[in-house]
Amino acid sequence: MTCAFCELAEGRASAAVVYEDENVIAFLDHRPLFPGHVLLIPRQHVETLTELPPERIEPLFAAARRLSSAVETAMEAEGTFVAINNRVSQSVPHLHVHIVPRRRGDGLRGFFWPRRKYSEGEMEDARQRIARQFQPRLH
Amino acid sequence: MTCAFCELAEGRASAAVVYEDENVIAFLDHRPLFPGHVLLIPRQHVETLTELPPERIEPLFAAARRLSSAVETAMEAEGTFVAINNRVSQSVPHLHVHIVPRRRGDGLRGFFWPRRKYSEGEMEDARQRIARQFQPRLH
Repeated sequence: MTCAFCELAEGRASAAVVYEDENVIAFLDHRPLFPGHVLLIPRQHVETLTELPPERIEPLFAAARRLSSAVETAMEAEGTFVAINNRVSQSVPHLHVHIVPRRRGDGLRGFFWPRRKYSEGEMEDARQRIARQFQPRLH
Repeated sequence: MTCAFCELAEGRASAAVVYEDENVIAFLDHRPLFPGHVLLIPRQHVETLTELPPERIEPLFAAARRLSSAVETAMEAEGTFVAINNRVSQSVPHLHVHIVPRRRGDGLRGFFWPRRKYSEGEMEDARQRIARQFQPRLH
């Protein structure tokens, strides 16, 4: 199956490119949260952050850092939202970093934080589950 | 002024820590989007992604990559949401990466994509503005 973002990365499809180098390509999302919403992808096909080879981490996120600054300045924004959806809510199965210009009062704040509270014991249970992933496995 | 996350990073305040090394510390957000919602911070104080020194990019995002995988596995999730709010919607002015377990139908999808369309000329204007940030300045 053809990957839409590989097509872009390999120059077989066009996009509104804002930045590219040998490792990454960044272009405008055509259905933006706000104008200037950029998608940054590694040229190499991987589906999620987990599959990104270690040596590709720095090139991708160095570009994300530069783009966050560029998008904010270019769009005269007050900040940015930098986000990756891994699998769930991920429309194209090729890792992409959303870089979105933000302004105070732009209406997104409420969306992002429908926060809840932990019930008794639930927080410690979550902590232990995650911390255990970093401990040596005992078989 | 005291930074709440520096207090954690320097061991002067406690948190539900799930991972730490010499560069970063990761702990549970006490008001999670979903249980297992982790905040990952560089120990060194910087406010946003833009201010993160280049040599700190790899250590931070290598940890984010490992945590994305750990959170997904530990919480028996189907994916993750990895996000940074730079200035706008940023509650603590010390760079932090949210790592949130996601499941299909968890109710967040609609929140994240109140997408719009570009009006005539608006997309090319945004493209040029951002691309220009990467071109040599002519003074």
